[in-house]
Amino acid sequence: MKTQIRYLEEINLKSPTAIVGAQGLRSVGKIALQHLIGELKPKIFAELYSRFLPAFFYGPSYLSPLSAPGVLRKDGFTELPSIRFYSHNKPELIITEGYQASESLGQYETACEIVDFFEKLKVVRIIIFGAHTTGKGVQCFATDLDLLKELTEYKIEKTQIDKFIGLPGLILGIGMIRGIKGFCLLGETSSSSNPEDPDPRGAKMVLDKLKDILGIDLDTSELKEKKPIGEIDYHV
Amino acid sequence: MKTQIRYLEEINLKSPTAIVGAQGLRSVGKIALQHLIGELKPKIFAELYSRFLPAFFYGPSYLSPLSAPGVLRKDGFTELPSIRFYSHNKPELIITEGYQASESLGQYETACEIVDFFEKLKVVRIIIFGAHTTGKGVQCFATDLDLLKELTEYKIEKTQIDKFIGLPGLILGIGMIRGIKGFCLLGETSSSSNPEDPDPRGAKMVLDKLKDILGIDLDTSELKEKKPIGEIDYHV
Amino acid sequence: MKTQIRYLEEINLKSPTAIVGAQGLRSVGKIALQHLIGELKPKIFAELYSRFLPAFFYGPSYLSPLSAPGVLRKDGFTELPSIRFYSHNKPELIITEGYQASESLGQYETACEIVDFFEKLKVVRIIIFGAHTTGKGVQCFATDLDLLKELTEYKIEKTQIDKFIGLPGLILGIGMIRGIKGFCLLGETSSSSNPEDPDPRGAKMVLDKLKDILGIDLDTSELKEKKPIGEIDYHV
Amino acid sequence: MKTQIRYLEEINLKSPTAIVGAQGLRSVGKIALQHLIGELKPKIFAELYSRFLPAFFYGPSYLSPLSAPGVLRKDGFTELPSIRFYSHNKPELIITEGYQASESLGQYETACEIVDFFEKLKVVRIIIFGAHTTGKGVQCFATDLDLLKELTEYKIEKTQIDKFIGLPGLILGIGMIRGIKGFCLLGETSSSSNPEDPDPRGAKMVLDKLKDILGIDLDTSELKEKKPIGEIDYHV
Repeated sequence: MKTQIRYLEEINLKSPTAIVGAQGLRSVGKIALQHLIGELKPKIFAELYSRFLPAFFYGPSYLSPLSAPGVLRKDGFTELPSIRFYSHNKPELIITEGYQASESLGQYETACEIVDFFEKLKVVRIIIFGAHTTGKGVQCFATDLDLLKELTEYKIEKTQIDKFIGLPGLILGIGMIRGIKGFCLLGETSSSSNPEDPDPRGAKMVLDKLKDILGIDLDTSELKEKKPIGEIDYHV
Repeated sequence: MKTQIRYLEEINLKSPTAIVGAQGLRSVGKIALQHLIGELKPKIFAELYSRFLPAFFYGPSYLSPLSAPGVLRKDGFTELPSIRFYSHNKPELIITEGYQASESLGQYETACEIVDFFEKLKVVRIIIFGAHTTGKGVQCFATDLDLLKELTEYKIEKTQIDKFIGLPGLILGIGMIRGIKGFCLLGETSSSSNPEDPDPRGAKMVLDKLKDILGIDLDTSELKEKKPIGEIDYHV
Repeated sequence: MKTQIRYLEEINLKSPTAIVGAQGLRSVGKIALQHLIGELKPKIFAELYSRFLPAFFYGPSYLSPLSAPGVLRKDGFTELPSIRFYSHNKPELIITEGYQASESLGQYETACEIVDFFEKLKVVRIIIFGAHTTGKGVQCFATDLDLLKELTEYKIEKTQIDKFIGLPGLILGIGMIRGIKGFCLLGETSSSSNPEDPDPRGAKMVLDKLKDILGIDLDTSELKEKKPIGEIDYHV
Repeated sequence: MKTQIRYLEEINLKSPTAIVGAQGLRSVGKIALQHLIGELKPKIFAELYSRFLPAFFYGPSYLSPLSAPGVLRKDGFTELPSIRFYSHNKPELIITEGYQASESLGQYETACEIVDFFEKLKVVRIIIFGAHTTGKGVQCFATDLDLLKELTEYKIEKTQIDKFIGLPGLILGIGMIRGIKGFCLLGETSSSSNPEDPDPRGAKMVLDKLKDILGIDLDTSELKEKKPIGEIDYHV
């Protein structure tokens, strides 16, 4: 099965910013993305299906563990694992609900298909979400010096971490060699025996900075306190 | 080696229902499918060979364990692992004896080839078999609300399980995004240290519901009691 | 890198029998094949290179363990792992020095390329070597009843083993669905903590039966006694 | 994503020698290559990107461990893992900063792309770097007898090691079957609990021999003493 992107409806944005979050360290990126969708209520317009999207990971999904394919079942309905694309008009955003693919090959292929899609949608900037455990506040890394400087104005320091594993990072990296600029916002979090143990505080930090950068209105108050697993809308 | 489907003979059904079972939790789906073949005596009309069908699994086959390819030997004869298709006339059925493929990629590729084949055979509905350990009786999940309602009439409740790993589920999921409706019947079973330890009782439950749904005659009495491994016609 | 077969020289056989041995249980097939080459002195005429042939296996090679690619070094020379084909005239033989490929996909692809090559070389029969630990003497399995009967005349019983893992078996299986007949000769051996610990006695048994079947002269006396690892010409 | 080589600028060499080093035993090849770049100051002219280049290895990179893709971050900048090509004029060199790819398939595919690229660049000789723990001084293996003899003149003995795992070896092996001659220089090192624990002494030995072979000027004095990890310019 080739990777396929199914349009649910046509969109027509002029120069959107793509925002990408997926499973990852303390689920910060995933929570931030899901909260953003909940708040902005963008409309879903496309879904990506791939033979590399498993239903089950034998370990933290973003660390390329072994995995097994299958379907997800939600309230009795069948669901094939997918990556979902939402569009928002003011500002123009392509909000991308990522999903870690299996194997090195699968992560690259999926990231590449998404960057192809972003090019088609005339995306001019890619913002990805992540987390760090090395210091205070939101940190960043970017594709070029101008963006790093711009982020300093929002009091976002560049990170000292030397590797960023997983699909959103690959999308940023592949986008970069195609000429799309972008950066990563890393929320502060702490280590946990389960690396994907949800930490809404990191997600809140990331969204509060995003709010400033995009100049949008966003209520992040419900992400204020750490909640135990299961109390937030978190799946996969 | 590309996946290949070899026709043993031509069939001509108008709008068959495909039934799929394979190795899985407590072998419920496999046993149900093999019993169905034993009872209905459908004729085998095609075989699928794939580079992703191993001869040996280093763990429960449906959980995508490591595996090794090779041949199976039955009474001195050589057999290349395969998925077998049987046809039945009244009602029109394509009974598919599944086989778990190796790797995420292999499961998707094999499921996709089978759905392609189902489309060619004008399949209008896909029924897959599985098992659950969360509650009583047969449970289900389906591709749409109408089917879920229909299944309620047969006193089949929707399941609470959130993931269904393995080939039959993928066939249902890929069929769904191609527009083929279908559902999964999950027989009640219990956990076991060997997840594939055969439980004929779960298979009996599934077949008894199938009997009602399809309006066919089916003797499931010999599946009544749990038999130890080796006493039932169970291989791979 | 696509699998490639490099001709060292052209051969012209009318209806050769292919003989295949590779690493496997107690190295019986590998030793038998290497001894056959040493005795018959066939000329090497082709080599197969594949991205699936590793230089190092993290476990018994035929059980599809993890592996790592690289080169082999022999007396200061570089060697890329390969499968070698030798031709012999009376009787017409294609002696194939197999090599276990990495991954399910690699074993299938390599076996398939070899069967393609055999078809091109007009191979009419495939004989593979293996070993068993279930009973006395040489056992067999075959692609059809006629061959099983024929083998009974040489006092070779059909085996009770139900799986045969590895490249030679796949070659036999894929050859079979392409219409090439063949069988496997399994030498008697015993278990060992290292499954590939060389057992020349099993190889001797296999070759003594092959001698009868092919009607050739073959000195197997030096395989009479079990030698410790390292004393026989055994590599990889 | 297909493997892609991006030109940063055109080069025009007549018959260059390619030099390849990558992660490996005690990081000898990597250090030697990075030091060579630091001393000769060749200009970078191309980069190779591949879906098989991971950001993180769960073990020694050259032993084909499990791995995970992602991006590297250097001082706040995003970097997609890559293999870098540098050109030098007198003598004509293509200095290749290798990178271990994931999986058997990935190592072969990457090595093959690099040899394709070398052919296009009219490379006439391939020299790779490595390490050994079996004896004194620099050892070698080569693609043919003439080179082995030539290396004897530089007091480089042929190695007794029978396997050489990793990308540079594959490049040499694939180059060989394409008709490009070459050899491997193995620096003396010792075992360590971390197989990639940097040993600059092995790298110094290799470069001192390379200096003689190429007739170039090279200051290797700073590699004289073993430094702990982190004190040398060593990353990935």
